[in-house]
Amino acid sequence: PITRLPKVGTTIFTVMSQLAMEHQAVNLGQGFPDFDVPERLINELDKAMRTGQNQYAPMPGTPALRDAIADKTLACYGVRPDPATEITVCSGASEAIFNAVAAVVHPGDEVIVLDPCYDCYEPAIDLVGGVAVHVGLDPETFAPDWDAIRAAITPKTRLLMINSPHNPSGAIWSAQDMATLDALLADTGIYLLSDEVYEHIVFDDARHESALRYPGLRERAFVISSFGKTYHCTGWKLGYVVAPPMLTAELRKVHQYNTFCTFAPAQAAFAAMIRDEPEHYQELGAFYQKRRDAFREQLGRTRFRALPVPGGYFQLVDYSAISDMNDVEFSRWLTIEKGVTAIPLSPFYAQAPQGQRLVRLCFAKSDATLAAAIERLEAL
Amino acid sequence: PITRLPKVGTTIFTVMSQLAMEHQAVNLGQGFPDFDVPERLINELDKAMRTGQNQYAPMPGTPALRDAIADKTLACYGVRPDPATEITVCSGASEAIFNAVAAVVHPGDEVIVLDPCYDCYEPAIDLVGGVAVHVGLDPETFAPDWDAIRAAITPKTRLLMINSPHNPSGAIWSAQDMATLDALLADTGIYLLSDEVYEHIVFDDARHESALRYPGLRERAFVISSFGKTYHCTGWKLGYVVAPPMLTAELRKVHQYNTFCTFAPAQAAFAAMIRDEPEHYQELGAFYQKRRDAFREQLGRTRFRALPVPGGYFQLVDYSAISDMNDVEFSRWLTIEKGVTAIPLSPFYAQAPQGQRLVRLCFAKSDATLAAAIERLEAL
Ligand SMILES: CSCCC(=O)C(=O)O
Ligand SMILES: CSCCC(=O)C(=O)O
Repeated sequence: PITRLPKVGTTIFTVMSQLAMEHQAVNLGQGFPDFDVPERLINELDKAMRTGQNQYAPMPGTPALRDAIADKTLACYGVRPDPATEITVCSGASEAIFNAVAAVVHPGDEVIVLDPCYDCYEPAIDLVGGVAVHVGLDPETFAPDWDAIRAAITPKTRLLMINSPHNPSGAIWSAQDMATLDALLADTGIYLLSDEVYEHIVFDDARHESALRYPGLRERAFVISSFGKTYHCTGWKLGYVVAPPMLTAELRKVHQYNTFCTFAPAQAAFAAMIRDEPEHYQELGAFYQKRRDAFREQLGRTRFRALPVPGGYFQLVDYSAISDMNDVEFSRWLTIEKGVTAIPLSPFYAQAPQGQRLVRLCFAKSDATLAAAIERLEAL
Repeated sequence: PITRLPKVGTTIFTVMSQLAMEHQAVNLGQGFPDFDVPERLINELDKAMRTGQNQYAPMPGTPALRDAIADKTLACYGVRPDPATEITVCSGASEAIFNAVAAVVHPGDEVIVLDPCYDCYEPAIDLVGGVAVHVGLDPETFAPDWDAIRAAITPKTRLLMINSPHNPSGAIWSAQDMATLDALLADTGIYLLSDEVYEHIVFDDARHESALRYPGLRERAFVISSFGKTYHCTGWKLGYVVAPPMLTAELRKVHQYNTFCTFAPAQAAFAAMIRDEPEHYQELGAFYQKRRDAFREQLGRTRFRALPVPGGYFQLVDYSAISDMNDVEFSRWLTIEKGVTAIPLSPFYAQAPQGQRLVRLCFAKSDATLAAAIERLEAL
């Protein structure tokens, strides 16, 4: 058939994971942790299955899980969304993002995305007939370029999508950034989609500036998070959206007829886990900060230049001292010839900056895995 | 915001389940079984979680599960789809249907749906800018009305959606129906979506006429099934699509950016279950036939007229001897005043036949639940 998504190929994450497998490379590409899922979570999920919680969950998520999310949100960001009208559980942040876009973007509407950005944003926009308008983040700091964002806004702008901590760069938005954004969107009808799936992975005593902290943003925002990154279970595909009642109502219309509801036993498990063991998410930043620091120290023994990592579990490295291949060629070469898999940055851009020589390494990996990678990278 | 889905309200299943809960009614409305999930399946899922299968599954589904589905398809329908290019695992049949529609329906394309039909078909069509063209099934037998279908086809027809065994009526398509369909679509570019989620629940020695048995249909079809109905776990949300490589490629473009992948530990569990215990699905028809027969015998003691049930786990009953309320009013009254919840038929129609007095009862329930319902219905 004539394709509905002419720009879509196989996602770079799958491409690189397959190449890693074929060449038995150490896979620091696709972002998934190799740590154990907390045993409590597995036990709770098991219990839910064995006590008959196996039929359709309520469409917006179980009341217990939505309550737990509301309380956690209050504890973390000082506001308690209403579980009945402001929280919706989805099959991962992916489905949440897809639903939010489909809910508010009409054919011909413009959606501003900030490049480099996660590759699921644009296809969702395309499918519902919207137009993605790409604005670059600063190519070194990955901070928002306010002049460029301002210039991209038109009467057709329906939605702006942001992401902090940022995949792929690890940059985080400051309180100043959020205040600027708040002022910029005030008196506009533009909605905000704030992708905050790495919310609990921020370093060096920085605070995660959730859009939920800013009343002017909160009232126009879909704030999206997920449990996969926080509980080391990216394959469980449980995410959620916090949004004001009117936006939640629209989002649920899509969710209701997209997946309808999400794996019920996991909802019971997360409700218990979030409520009873807040230490897990409270300590996640420290857990990853240790790994980040160790990994960066080891990288110091290589010829890569490591960019700062204020948040998330990805490390950008500049390889210009090693090669002048483009990033896609370099990533393939690194996998095939050197046995380490990275993710090139250009697929995160509509148009990558000229001469950028950056690839992304995931450090959400065991010491042994990281050591094996470093050993190979040192030889370069 | 101006809604993208002006026709969508809360689904009738949620509305009636909530009403049932409020009034402590016996809930024969929303279709979900209250039988135990096979213990083997729970044990396998538990094992998968405890052996580290908790990260992203491959986007199209795990190779083990796609292999098992291919072999099962061969055993059931005599054709073995290629797991690499023709099978995609989704988050329930719902996501599968949504993805299939989004993959091939362009703005302005027409999609023929046969009323009464499941309520997720039309919103998917609307969201991507297609036009749903409603054609009625026969109001007594729910057989296809070929003249009406033929008359509905235009140069803009992109897709036809069928469903056998049929929800809500329980009707099944005969070999003759499938041959007629095959002839009708030959030499057209119309795709077929065949929703076969009740494939293993057919009665009285009838055969499920999967579209996969008909080469002319198979080459243009998304054939969609799910494990929820077969393994008593509607809340696990695992479904799949069998489609020729070209259609699979388009469907995966949507799936990749909708949910990306589906709860990984359940994929491992179903792979083992399907392969090692085919008896479960082979015996499901007999399992439900016993319940259907018992339920219909009990219904004989009431003033409802029970329509034939060749497949599925729903019983349509005509209540004209009891009331002349419309079906929505009658369903509310039955829940609130009589303590039994049914689903009215009119929400499955764009325009329900004048004077139709039908509601749907789900008999995928324990003997005790069905007996409690019958006791209340007998009093009418
Ligand atoms: C869905 S695979 C991609 C995982 C991920 O979030 C990343 O690697 O950026
Ligand atoms: C998703 S709730 C509806 C369940 C169902 O298939 C039905 O009752 O028809």
